[in-house]
Amino acid sequence: MTRPEIARRLHGIFAATPTPFTTAGEFDPGHLTSNLGHWGRQPLSGYVLLGSNGEAVLLTPDERVRVVEASRSVIPSDRLLIAGAGMDSTRATLEQAQRMARVGADAVIVVTPHYYKSRMTPAALERFYQEVADASPVPVILYSVPANTGIDLPLETVLRLATHPNIAGIKDSGGDVVKIGRVAREAAQDFCVMAGSAGFLLPALSMGAGGGITALANVAAGPLARLVEAFKAGDHRTAQRLQLTLLEPNLAVTSRFGVAGLKAALDMQGLYGGPVRPPLLPLPDEERGSLRRILAQAGLLEETRPV
Amino acid sequence: MTRPEIARRLHGIFAATPTPFTTAGEFDPGHLTSNLGHWGRQPLSGYVLLGSNGEAVLLTPDERVRVVEASRSVIPSDRLLIAGAGMDSTRATLEQAQRMARVGADAVIVVTPHYYKSRMTPAALERFYQEVADASPVPVILYSVPANTGIDLPLETVLRLATHPNIAGIKDSGGDVVKIGRVAREAAQDFCVMAGSAGFLLPALSMGAGGGITALANVAAGPLARLVEAFKAGDHRTAQRLQLTLLEPNLAVTSRFGVAGLKAALDMQGLYGGPVRPPLLPLPDEERGSLRRILAQAGLLEETRPV
Amino acid sequence: MTRPEIARRLHGIFAATPTPFTTAGEFDPGHLTSNLGHWGRQPLSGYVLLGSNGEAVLLTPDERVRVVEASRSVIPSDRLLIAGAGMDSTRATLEQAQRMARVGADAVIVVTPHYYKSRMTPAALERFYQEVADASPVPVILYSVPANTGIDLPLETVLRLATHPNIAGIKDSGGDVVKIGRVAREAAQDFCVMAGSAGFLLPALSMGAGGGITALANVAAGPLARLVEAFKAGDHRTAQRLQLTLLEPNLAVTSRFGVAGLKAALDMQGLYGGPVRPPLLPLPDEERGSLRRILAQAGLLEETRPV
Amino acid sequence: MTRPEIARRLHGIFAATPTPFTTAGEFDPGHLTSNLGHWGRQPLSGYVLLGSNGEAVLLTPDERVRVVEASRSVIPSDRLLIAGAGMDSTRATLEQAQRMARVGADAVIVVTPHYYKSRMTPAALERFYQEVADASPVPVILYSVPANTGIDLPLETVLRLATHPNIAGIKDSGGDVVKIGRVAREAAQDFCVMAGSAGFLLPALSMGAGGGITALANVAAGPLARLVEAFKAGDHRTAQRLQLTLLEPNLAVTSRFGVAGLKAALDMQGLYGGPVRPPLLPLPDEERGSLRRILAQAGLLEETRPV
Repeated sequence: MTRPEIARRLHGIFAATPTPFTTAGEFDPGHLTSNLGHWGRQPLSGYVLLGSNGEAVLLTPDERVRVVEASRSVIPSDRLLIAGAGMDSTRATLEQAQRMARVGADAVIVVTPHYYKSRMTPAALERFYQEVADASPVPVILYSVPANTGIDLPLETVLRLATHPNIAGIKDSGGDVVKIGRVAREAAQDFCVMAGSAGFLLPALSMGAGGGITALANVAAGPLARLVEAFKAGDHRTAQRLQLTLLEPNLAVTSRFGVAGLKAALDMQGLYGGPVRPPLLPLPDEERGSLRRILAQAGLLEETRPV
Repeated sequence: MTRPEIARRLHGIFAATPTPFTTAGEFDPGHLTSNLGHWGRQPLSGYVLLGSNGEAVLLTPDERVRVVEASRSVIPSDRLLIAGAGMDSTRATLEQAQRMARVGADAVIVVTPHYYKSRMTPAALERFYQEVADASPVPVILYSVPANTGIDLPLETVLRLATHPNIAGIKDSGGDVVKIGRVAREAAQDFCVMAGSAGFLLPALSMGAGGGITALANVAAGPLARLVEAFKAGDHRTAQRLQLTLLEPNLAVTSRFGVAGLKAALDMQGLYGGPVRPPLLPLPDEERGSLRRILAQAGLLEETRPV
Repeated sequence: MTRPEIARRLHGIFAATPTPFTTAGEFDPGHLTSNLGHWGRQPLSGYVLLGSNGEAVLLTPDERVRVVEASRSVIPSDRLLIAGAGMDSTRATLEQAQRMARVGADAVIVVTPHYYKSRMTPAALERFYQEVADASPVPVILYSVPANTGIDLPLETVLRLATHPNIAGIKDSGGDVVKIGRVAREAAQDFCVMAGSAGFLLPALSMGAGGGITALANVAAGPLARLVEAFKAGDHRTAQRLQLTLLEPNLAVTSRFGVAGLKAALDMQGLYGGPVRPPLLPLPDEERGSLRRILAQAGLLEETRPV
Repeated sequence: MTRPEIARRLHGIFAATPTPFTTAGEFDPGHLTSNLGHWGRQPLSGYVLLGSNGEAVLLTPDERVRVVEASRSVIPSDRLLIAGAGMDSTRATLEQAQRMARVGADAVIVVTPHYYKSRMTPAALERFYQEVADASPVPVILYSVPANTGIDLPLETVLRLATHPNIAGIKDSGGDVVKIGRVAREAAQDFCVMAGSAGFLLPALSMGAGGGITALANVAAGPLARLVEAFKAGDHRTAQRLQLTLLEPNLAVTSRFGVAGLKAALDMQGLYGGPVRPPLLPLPDEERGSLRRILAQAGLLEETRPV
């Protein structure tokens, strides 16, 4: 798929899907495909596999390829499969992008390199993404997630990279809606900004984002899709009501309880969440209770489907 | 005025007005009232005097009272006059609130105390605002501006203070739209959240804010008021177009060029901006040129009115 | 006194003294002078009044002058009296420096202005201190305390200001010992760096600091002076033992319990601590117990003197 | 080797060695061993391979093992070989520690996991290190480097981990000398704190650190060893002179120019530095000139040895 095609389809709600593990801690392709079967009946535009919610950094490069391979086998071609390919080094990222393309990824999403923070100048970040985009067989999506990396991809760098023929958009999880607005205004028409969290989906849409790539989409695809529709229809009251209702569930499956919270929420919905990999810790029982109450109050436990 | 009255009128666009100084650096009441005469013909709901844009911390307490006195003489009663009254100590803040009420302020706005940052626990901040609100003759508006103070008034503290019968709302300049949404959702119906910068006005409105108290309103009241109208009417395309157009002018009169930039913009519009007080520095000539281009491109130099 | 004289005497241990208040919250000159009487028998080189520990920001400018006036009446001329004179505006700082000189301050210490953080560029800070130093009748000491102000006076600015004939030194509370070392190495011979906290006194001495201006000196002048002596004598074992012993008491009267902790410690030693001014909160009883244990374990309750 | 043995030998100066690459970007064992031959004649207590300066995150796990294997072949047993083994996941860290032990590492050094920053609570970090230390065939050294990871291993966690029979010490690169002092004072006798940068070596020694594990040791082992000797001998003037002289060279090979600066410095000394791996950028020519001047002024180009 070319950049314009990807950019055209990079709208609406994408699930940043978690990677299921067996109780022994091994990648569990069966539960991944059964989850994807459920999500296939939800109003999603596609999936990001092996992002932060996919515990990518806790998997080996080979395991990551297997995750994408297993997913592609059940994700139809009318839904985008975007695979995380970011590694610390440029050479490893290039290799991973090529492998992901070979097993069927429509695009790759690449987190900012971040270990050598003080050296990750705008020039270094720009060079990195250019080299990755030059070599990647599929379009590249930028990924800025300062809460995890300590690096907020600068506006000017985003704008410069937005002119690359193989860079289709950005997932911005920083929550700086002014930056989102400036990218939407100043970048090329077919460069798409996606909200990286459902907590600021409506504000991001109001600033010109095309949609969201979010953890919450795994447990609330319906309400999120309705929010986007209400926004487009100019029904700002409905959009606001949905957005405000989803704030607490969103926090619960992201910053408050983390990936362990997201997986526990899936378990509560009858999907498979399962354990996280250490050093992440499982959700304590009392937090599990809070999570259940939050999901129930937002009406998210009625959507339960058997896996 | 009571809290419900203030809260009812705390909607739409408020100008966070600068304090004019003569070239000798003295408070210049004549230019303040002439500016207010111009703004009186703009679609503003009211004014905040002696906030960050008013250089409050660079004026003596007596000078601040004179600013409000001079302003009230020309601000009609159908527009809210909100006066900055925050001081470092509780006792000085109480005194200043009383003085401001005596010279005609409809409400006072009180910045978080911040010098002893590590001691400004939620408990200390809550106690501070309670004591101020208990004693203030007019309703109190909370003011959280982490870029200046290093303190972001915590959500839980805001929600607790929102139940006080003499606290009417909050000006939140932090730009965290998720927090704005949570306050809008969880606080009492008649507690109003106002965006503290025009950069995220539309996102804030989408989250339930009542409007904005902003520097940009001094130079772009018309477009900002039209943005609010478009939002209310469900015309999200117009609202978005206005918001995106205003992003750069807003940055220019806030974080990029500061109060000196705001005052220079007033000068360019034919109002009186004049000098800032040291340690603030005047705007260098090359930045003045950039500012003029930015305002012109946004169509904000056509609105010029003679003072 | 001239800069060289001040710089020559800016060595050893200075107490950053708290300002006593009556239970009604008024400045209490009697207890200030009785405390100073006690400290007069301690091995101190002088005093800083109206720094962060002096709750300067919680006093009116007039009250601050009275504090210095009362102190000078009992501080002999062979001990330096350094008065806090920093205000938000340059003009107010100039005026305050002049008033402090008139009532007997040997030097003034001036905190970085900080409300308009993003505008406090190196150029703005340099201009501010130059104007203050040009006009001050007594030498100026720079004061960088990022935990309170959010601003760390940059090395290059310090070095440039160190060439001013009326700037004698810096109190650096940031704890960046590399910066302290670079100032000690690169600034003029008679520009003195003083550790702003007893927590890093020995490391600062090892880097070339002349001594410390610290809260802990109010309750542990003896051990701190012995630490300096041991360091100078090359007895690094004794110096280290004293430094490590003082770490916990120092934390207790600074970042852990704040000025309320420092005042409670004075009360426990038989001096007068008394209340803090709101919005600072009094020390809760359980923390008072912890503080007592910490002081006792470090042998600091044996030095008790009746006031 | 047991923890007590490692702890006993964890004193003095260790080089945090860079990993040489060929111009094609491949690991270059020949130049690594020739460099180690040079360092073998320097007063070093040992080496840390595959830390931040070793570009560990830019190598595959297999490459990292080869680096240690090649090093051990030329590092005599009377010098400690400490190998970086930290990975994002606990399971990968365990495996890497076992592999490093098999190829001859005397101990492993393990950086704090950091991608899921908000989940890396004290409890999660403690559990992580316990599991690693329980399983590692060789003693574990903690590694806290907040400038790269955004995580400062909390004091309480360090103290708790210091009781583990297989955890021998910590390399602390944060520069918080108060924390270093508290660990030195409160941890078990045979738990060693090592300064993570030569910029604060003397302050750290003054607080009870056993020595330093530093980038600068690759280019200035002699002066650093003399600094430690002078400190131990109570010759604080010589120690201070050396420390202050080394501040600028240290900055040049760490925060100012990064690993590219360190490698360029090796090239200038006649050792092999060579290229860095992208996304790190090579040192621009003008910075190379600055670096050369800094090294020359500190007398560090006279020690040149042919490789």
